[in-house]
Amino acid sequence: MTCPDRPGLVSTISRFIYEREGNILDLDEHVDPAGKTFFIRVAWNIPSDNGSFEEIRDAFRPAAEDFNATWILRPSGSRTRVAVFVSRYDHCLQEILWRHSIGEFPIDIPLIVSNHSDLSDLAARYGIPFRVFPVTALNKHEMEERQMELLSDMRIDTVILARYMQILSPRFVGMYPSGIINIHHSFLPAFVGGNPYRQAYERGVKIIGATSHYVTEDLDEGPIIEQDIIRVTHKDTLEDLIRKGRDLERLVLAKALRLHANNRILVNGKKTVVFD
Amino acid sequence: MTCPDRPGLVSTISRFIYEREGNILDLDEHVDPAGKTFFIRVAWNIPSDNGSFEEIRDAFRPAAEDFNATWILRPSGSRTRVAVFVSRYDHCLQEILWRHSIGEFPIDIPLIVSNHSDLSDLAARYGIPFRVFPVTALNKHEMEERQMELLSDMRIDTVILARYMQILSPRFVGMYPSGIINIHHSFLPAFVGGNPYRQAYERGVKIIGATSHYVTEDLDEGPIIEQDIIRVTHKDTLEDLIRKGRDLERLVLAKALRLHANNRILVNGKKTVVFD
Amino acid sequence: MTCPDRPGLVSTISRFIYEREGNILDLDEHVDPAGKTFFIRVAWNIPSDNGSFEEIRDAFRPAAEDFNATWILRPSGSRTRVAVFVSRYDHCLQEILWRHSIGEFPIDIPLIVSNHSDLSDLAARYGIPFRVFPVTALNKHEMEERQMELLSDMRIDTVILARYMQILSPRFVGMYPSGIINIHHSFLPAFVGGNPYRQAYERGVKIIGATSHYVTEDLDEGPIIEQDIIRVTHKDTLEDLIRKGRDLERLVLAKALRLHANNRILVNGKKTVVFD
Amino acid sequence: MTCPDRPGLVSTISRFIYEREGNILDLDEHVDPAGKTFFIRVAWNIPSDNGSFEEIRDAFRPAAEDFNATWILRPSGSRTRVAVFVSRYDHCLQEILWRHSIGEFPIDIPLIVSNHSDLSDLAARYGIPFRVFPVTALNKHEMEERQMELLSDMRIDTVILARYMQILSPRFVGMYPSGIINIHHSFLPAFVGGNPYRQAYERGVKIIGATSHYVTEDLDEGPIIEQDIIRVTHKDTLEDLIRKGRDLERLVLAKALRLHANNRILVNGKKTVVFD
Repeated sequence: MTCPDRPGLVSTISRFIYEREGNILDLDEHVDPAGKTFFIRVAWNIPSDNGSFEEIRDAFRPAAEDFNATWILRPSGSRTRVAVFVSRYDHCLQEILWRHSIGEFPIDIPLIVSNHSDLSDLAARYGIPFRVFPVTALNKHEMEERQMELLSDMRIDTVILARYMQILSPRFVGMYPSGIINIHHSFLPAFVGGNPYRQAYERGVKIIGATSHYVTEDLDEGPIIEQDIIRVTHKDTLEDLIRKGRDLERLVLAKALRLHANNRILVNGKKTVVFD
Repeated sequence: MTCPDRPGLVSTISRFIYEREGNILDLDEHVDPAGKTFFIRVAWNIPSDNGSFEEIRDAFRPAAEDFNATWILRPSGSRTRVAVFVSRYDHCLQEILWRHSIGEFPIDIPLIVSNHSDLSDLAARYGIPFRVFPVTALNKHEMEERQMELLSDMRIDTVILARYMQILSPRFVGMYPSGIINIHHSFLPAFVGGNPYRQAYERGVKIIGATSHYVTEDLDEGPIIEQDIIRVTHKDTLEDLIRKGRDLERLVLAKALRLHANNRILVNGKKTVVFD
Repeated sequence: MTCPDRPGLVSTISRFIYEREGNILDLDEHVDPAGKTFFIRVAWNIPSDNGSFEEIRDAFRPAAEDFNATWILRPSGSRTRVAVFVSRYDHCLQEILWRHSIGEFPIDIPLIVSNHSDLSDLAARYGIPFRVFPVTALNKHEMEERQMELLSDMRIDTVILARYMQILSPRFVGMYPSGIINIHHSFLPAFVGGNPYRQAYERGVKIIGATSHYVTEDLDEGPIIEQDIIRVTHKDTLEDLIRKGRDLERLVLAKALRLHANNRILVNGKKTVVFD
Repeated sequence: MTCPDRPGLVSTISRFIYEREGNILDLDEHVDPAGKTFFIRVAWNIPSDNGSFEEIRDAFRPAAEDFNATWILRPSGSRTRVAVFVSRYDHCLQEILWRHSIGEFPIDIPLIVSNHSDLSDLAARYGIPFRVFPVTALNKHEMEERQMELLSDMRIDTVILARYMQILSPRFVGMYPSGIINIHHSFLPAFVGGNPYRQAYERGVKIIGATSHYVTEDLDEGPIIEQDIIRVTHKDTLEDLIRKGRDLERLVLAKALRLHANNRILVNGKKTVVFD
C-alpha cells in the first residue's frame, strides 16, 4: 500500500489485522521524506474461519479510501501470470525457465513470445507455449495489436523483456503500468541506447553493469529495480565484456522478477521502493 | 524492542504512538521464525506538549512488561558515550576520530584507552583525553580493575576495541553486554585467533575479510555485526594483505559503530538483527 | 611453465619464440618471493612453415630440462576432455552444459558420471553420455575402480565435481594431480565439512561464499582457484542461503573451469597462481 | 614502455636485462589487439657494479628508438613529487596524507594548493606547505599562471585533484599530460558534470560509484584509472549518498595515486592499461 503520509497509518493497518486475530509475519515500511509518501508491505496470517479473502478485502476498503491509498491485497498462495518476450539470445530465458523449474518464483509462465523462432526448442523443453510474431518495420503496429490481444486473452499480469530487441509502443506500455520489466545491458544511466557493451569498451570503463527496470514510455528511463556490476580490465575484449555481461543480465533480471512476483517493489514516481 | 512473538505487538506499539499524536518516521520489524522472537525499531516524532520523555517511558512500561520485552526508548538527540581502546595501530582510531569530527556518529568520545603511548598525539590532535594502562601479564587483573572503574566513573556506554591487542577478562566483558565492539581482521569464522593475515596468505585464499562483532566471553565468537571483503591475488604479498585489510578493518568497524550508535542492532542469541 | 627462479628465464623463452619468427600475444609472469619460484604463461603465434608442433616441443625440451621446469606446450586449438561428476543437484551441471553449448569453454564433455539417475534427462538434452555408478558404502572401492577405468578409456583430462556428494579415495585423487576441480559451498576455510549453509546460518554471518579448488587428499584443503561471496541479512532463512549460494556455486565453478581449460592456473604448492 | 607491436620486443628487453646480469622480479605485458600496440612494465634488479643508472639508460636508448617507443626507466627508490589541490572537503586530502604518513606511497608531497584556507590546519598537522590561491572568475587566468610557475619551481611531477572544485584551463592540463589525476564522484560516464549525487538520487539508482581518471581537455572524459561502487537503497537520503560516496572517493583516489606512483598505469589513447 502507498498513500500520502499521515499519523495513524501503521496503527490502523496493524489493528485491522489484530482484530481479525491475524499475526504479522513480515512488515516493511518506508516514508519518503521528499514526497511525504508512505509505503508499506505486510505479510500476515489469519485463522481460516475469520472471513473469506473477499470479505477481508471489502472490510479494508473504507480505510484505504480514507487514506487515498493505492493498495493490493493478495492471498499468499497466489501466482503472477508472466509472459516472457525474447528475441535470439537465450541466456535470460534459460535462466528464468530453469529457476522457475526449481520453484524460485511464485509465478506461472503460460506464454513465451518472440519475433524469431530461434528459442522455440528451449521453450518446448520446459513445455511452455511459444508464439512467434515476426515483427517488421511495416507490420509492427498490427503485430503489437495481436500480441496485446493474446496477453489479454491469457490474463497475463506481467511481461518480462528478456533481451527482447524491439521497442514497445506507448499503447502497449500503457497496458501494463509497472507491469513490464526490462533488462538493459549497462549500468544505467550510463550507456543508454544501442550497443552499450561497445560503448563501455570504447570508453575504457573498469566496471560494467546491468539494470532491470520497469518500462515506461521514455526508453531506458523507467524506475530502476535492481542493478549489479562486474569488474573488467584492459585485458577484456569486447567479447569478454559481452560474456561477463551475460551473467549480470540474467542474475539481475531474475532478481527483479523474484522481487516483483513477491510484491516487494512499490513504485515511487520515477523510482522504486524495494522491500528486499 | 525484542520479545516473544505474538499477535498485536505492532498494533499496540503503533496505537501507543498514534494516541500521543506521534507520527512514525521509520519502522523496521523482524520475526525470527526459528525462535519465534519479535524485533522492532521505531523512530517517531511527537508534539512537544504531549508529555515529557520520562512520562512517555513510564506510560509504555506496562505494555512492555506484558510482552516480556527488552526495550530501549531514547530521545533522538541523545548521544552514546564511547571509549575507544587501542594499542599501536592507528588506522581504526584515525578513521573513527575523523568520521566523528565531521559528524557521522551521534556519539561523544570522552576517553581513549591504550596499553601503549604511541597514539597519544593522534588523540591530542582531536582533543580527546588519552589514558595509558601499561598492561603486562602480571598486572593485567589490576589494570582491568582500574579501567573498569574509570569507565564507570565516566559513564561510558560503549567500548570500541579499535585493534586493541589485549583479551578482556570475563568480568570486564560482563560489564558491557552487547556494549563492546571488536574488529577482527579476518572473515570470521575463518582464521580465528592470531595472525589471520598470515593464515590467509598461507592458505592462498582469493578473498580476505574483516568482521566486527560484539565481544562475549568466547573469543571471536560474539554476534557478528558487519563483514566485508576484498579480493587478493597470487601477486599480493603478506604486506599487501595487511595493507588491503587495513581498509576493510576501518570501514567495517566504522559501520558497526554507526549502526550501534543509531540503535540499529538488536542481538538475537548468537546473532544480530541489523536494521540498516 | 614453472621452475626455480634464476636470471635469463624470460630471455631464453622469448628468444626461443623470436628465433622461430613467432610473436607473443599474451604473457603473464610471476615470481613467488617466498619460494623463489618462477611462473610463466605465454600465448604466441608462429608462421605455419616454421616446424611442426612436435618439432617445436622437442626444440624447447633441452632448455626446460636445464631450468628443471614443469611445463606444458599446447596448440591453441586443443581442447581439454572433461568428465563432470554429479549427484542430484542440477544447478552446477546446468550451468556448465549451457555455457559449453554457447562456446564459452575450449573443452569437450564426452561423459557425465553420477551416483544417481536424476540428472540423466538434463544430460540427454545436451546429447552427452550419462553413466550411473550407484555408489554405496559397501561397493565404493569397486565403483571407483570402474570409474577410473572408464575415465582412462575415454582419455579424460579433467574431472569436475559439480556438487558430487561422494568423497574420492586417495587413489582416485592421485590419478589426476591438479586435474580434479571441486566446488565447496562455503567461503573456505570457513565452514569445512558438511552442511556449510546451516553452519553459516547458525553462526549468523553477514556474507556467504563459495570456493572452487583442486582436489587433494586432504578434504577441503586443496589449492583454491576462485572464491566469490554474496551478502545475507537476518531476514535470510536457511533456504534463502541455499538459494543465494546456488548462484555463487555455479558461477564460481564455471569460472574455475574456464581458467583451467585455458591453462591459466599454475599450482604453487598449496596455492594457485591464476593468470586471469 | 609502449610501442607498436612487433616480434622480438620481449626478447630484446629481457636479453638486455640478462646481459647485465639482472633478474626480472615482476613483468606485466599487454598487447591491445585493436591498436596493435604493445605495453610492458618490468621490475628488475642488477648487480651494483654493472654500470650506473645513466649508463643503463643510455645503453637502452638505441633499442627504444628502433621500436619507436615511449618509455621510462626509473631506479626503484625514486619518488614522485606530488602536489595535492583541494578546496573545502577534507576527506580525500585526509586519506592521502594519512596513507602517505604510514608509507603507502613512494612519493613526496612538498605542496598543497587550495582556493580556500579551510584545510590549512590539516596540512600543518602533517607539516606540508599550504598555499592559497583565491581563484575568482576574474583572476582565474592569473592565478593559474602563478600556480603553474610554482609547480614548475618545485619540480612537481604529478598533480592530484582531491575534490578541487575548479576546472583547469587547457594550458594547465597541457603542462601535465597523464600527470593530473582527478576524482569524480560518480560512476562515469553516468552523471557527468555538477551535483552527481543529486542526479543519482533523483534517478533512483541502486548503486553509486566514484571514478579516478587522468585529466584531459575534455571534462570528465579523460582515461579512467579506477572505479568502485557501493549499494544504495530507497532508504538512503541525498545526505546518505554523499556520506557513502565519500568513502568511495577517498579509496578510489588513493588507489589511483598508488598505481600512478608505482608506474603501473600506461595510457592507451582514451583508455588506460593498469598493471595492478
